[in-house]
Amino acid sequence: MSFTLAEARAADAADPLRPFRDRFHLPQGLVYLDGNSLGALPKAAVGRLGRVIEEEWGEELIRSWNSRDWIGAPQRVGAKIAPLIGAKPNEVIVADSTSVNLFKLLVAAAGLSDRKVILSEAGNFHTDLHIASGAADLLGLQLEIAPRAEVEARIGADVAVLLLTHVHYKSAERFDMARITAKAAEAGIVTIWDLSHSAGAVPLDLNGAGAELAVGCGYKYLNGGPGAPAFLYVAEPLQGRLLSPLRGWMGHAEPFAFTDDYRPAAGIDRMLAGTPPILSLAALEAGLDAFEGATPARLWSKANALFDVFHGLVEQNCPELVCITPRLPEQRGSHISFRHPNAFEICQALIAADVIGDFRAPDVVRFGLTPLYLGFEDLWQAVDRMAAILRDGTWREPRFAVRGKVT
Amino acid sequence: MSFTLAEARAADAADPLRPFRDRFHLPQGLVYLDGNSLGALPKAAVGRLGRVIEEEWGEELIRSWNSRDWIGAPQRVGAKIAPLIGAKPNEVIVADSTSVNLFKLLVAAAGLSDRKVILSEAGNFHTDLHIASGAADLLGLQLEIAPRAEVEARIGADVAVLLLTHVHYKSAERFDMARITAKAAEAGIVTIWDLSHSAGAVPLDLNGAGAELAVGCGYKYLNGGPGAPAFLYVAEPLQGRLLSPLRGWMGHAEPFAFTDDYRPAAGIDRMLAGTPPILSLAALEAGLDAFEGATPARLWSKANALFDVFHGLVEQNCPELVCITPRLPEQRGSHISFRHPNAFEICQALIAADVIGDFRAPDVVRFGLTPLYLGFEDLWQAVDRMAAILRDGTWREPRFAVRGKVT
Repeated sequence: MSFTLAEARAADAADPLRPFRDRFHLPQGLVYLDGNSLGALPKAAVGRLGRVIEEEWGEELIRSWNSRDWIGAPQRVGAKIAPLIGAKPNEVIVADSTSVNLFKLLVAAAGLSDRKVILSEAGNFHTDLHIASGAADLLGLQLEIAPRAEVEARIGADVAVLLLTHVHYKSAERFDMARITAKAAEAGIVTIWDLSHSAGAVPLDLNGAGAELAVGCGYKYLNGGPGAPAFLYVAEPLQGRLLSPLRGWMGHAEPFAFTDDYRPAAGIDRMLAGTPPILSLAALEAGLDAFEGATPARLWSKANALFDVFHGLVEQNCPELVCITPRLPEQRGSHISFRHPNAFEICQALIAADVIGDFRAPDVVRFGLTPLYLGFEDLWQAVDRMAAILRDGTWREPRFAVRGKVT
Repeated sequence: MSFTLAEARAADAADPLRPFRDRFHLPQGLVYLDGNSLGALPKAAVGRLGRVIEEEWGEELIRSWNSRDWIGAPQRVGAKIAPLIGAKPNEVIVADSTSVNLFKLLVAAAGLSDRKVILSEAGNFHTDLHIASGAADLLGLQLEIAPRAEVEARIGADVAVLLLTHVHYKSAERFDMARITAKAAEAGIVTIWDLSHSAGAVPLDLNGAGAELAVGCGYKYLNGGPGAPAFLYVAEPLQGRLLSPLRGWMGHAEPFAFTDDYRPAAGIDRMLAGTPPILSLAALEAGLDAFEGATPARLWSKANALFDVFHGLVEQNCPELVCITPRLPEQRGSHISFRHPNAFEICQALIAADVIGDFRAPDVVRFGLTPLYLGFEDLWQAVDRMAAILRDGTWREPRFAVRGKVT
């Protein structure tokens, strides 16, 4: 291959983010290109969860709500996400799932106007569309989904809320957040950004882009563990005007006054609902602490170097795969996807060869290029094995066509 | 005291549930009477979480969704709750928080009729009332809250949904589930039961009572850990008729087909929303496994013995405390509450004396009598220390009046 194993190793040795790899547990021999779906285990999570379970829960028990500040975890962990997304610490909380947070923001944002349309993109991550259709049905609104290329043209005075995913889960195409937010705002539209495939890898400046509302996933590039709680961003000026449809006690102005009447908390806290999931929050906090010292600029520069190497190697050695991800950095995220009629089987054969990417129906194989812990040699090994699988037709073995529950 | 320490120890020795105590970590010297707020740590949770974190997440990574059946956790863990609440295994799932689950069921149940009223109890746990008021506002319904004694009389043809908490969080008063469910059903009303202060201690027979919908908490008597995910019950006949307002991808008929259109899953799965929180689910599963071999009947018989002993000891040795919990077993749950103008200070002084109960505003001190791991000597010790605090006026020390974030 044109980029040799020796060159890959040299690139790793010169990588300023290389020491961050040691903060993660990466199984021996495995090339993990799925950190955009489930981030790798931060080593610190093991000890931290152990302490939370054995000391805080086991010994301190209920007292930990105060003594270990369990009660402040949604805000504390949110504040650790803030610098990764260009937000102020008091503009981010961690709670619930991305789906549930999206519902809160959609209903709250729709309540700001009398307009009747929620606009989104056809082929957006489907949970976003389903949540939006549910919110629209409840509120008597219409959910309109436009093809990607037509979304901007559809921005108009009847639209209440524009819901977009910043980086597309499949193609990795990226919207221009600042330009679209401004264009929508000019038309009186509130935009909600789903940052699930951006946060922790792609540079984000929510404040600079004038973004008002956003949600994102805790278990992808943020390495919070399987099913980690999600985050929710509300720009300061909007915080006092939004009302959550999910009026749980943690969003109450005085949760421990136990009053029958609902009074929303000041600030973003009103977007909390039920009791915070302390074990999951602890794991996510460990994931975020693993970013300590890695600037967003450095992460993105590394992500781009990984992208160029991987793209080049695949182009040269796996010509059957058609890249559907834009080349230009400002037009994409930190994963790369390829089309192939047998993407599913190829993905399974790769897993058998200890290279983990993932399949996205109907014909896409997707690789996450996590800048925090991936190395250039990982990419070299992955393409080397993939080239062999394609060259030898290994993927045609019947066992690679067997589908599991999650594919 | 009339029930002596020697008698307490003899009662412990004769207790058929005594071996279950060894399944929990109970700090040396501490009397923990707050298992109805946060259950104690099941010893098995430590190893199980360790394995989930280090092996399933760390080594298996994304593959665990299939290989370790992460994807089936909401149903698998729900099926373990089923026998504790008198439900079929396919009628219970674990997901989200109690607040969020309540919202799903309220909106879904309201969608079954054109009626305009959600009826609940004044002084119900406030998150239930807040969630209901949010749902009512969204749907253009009225939330009516009636004093406890008047709830039944208010059952009428304009009520869509009756929302009641089976055992009251403060007084421990219990509603007659079978009778009220039947009376409501006769009037065409769907009842939602909140089982947060019942499940795991109080005998429940949802199927036998004709209950259609219920939610409940995972971190109280079920010992799932701080902020554990909650459960949700939908009786089989209703499952195909309910639609969740939170249409997350996990409730889709084909979550991995990635289609723009929403099609609800068959059965109770449609009530799932976002990605399941695997770490939290693992802890809850360990909590439920600790019930293995303890029948609901035996739990309740033990809970009653604990209640009688505690009630008797307090009546005799702490006459300043006024019990607000009914004596008769069928009228109450498994905690006991007392009124005192200085309940807050008494509670704090007890904590300083290593007896943990909790304070509920404005003037209640509450003790959870967890049948699975509490012993009679625990109760003797607690009352012995409380009697001394009251006798000596220790609670008057200024430090016991200092309020924390969570009180």
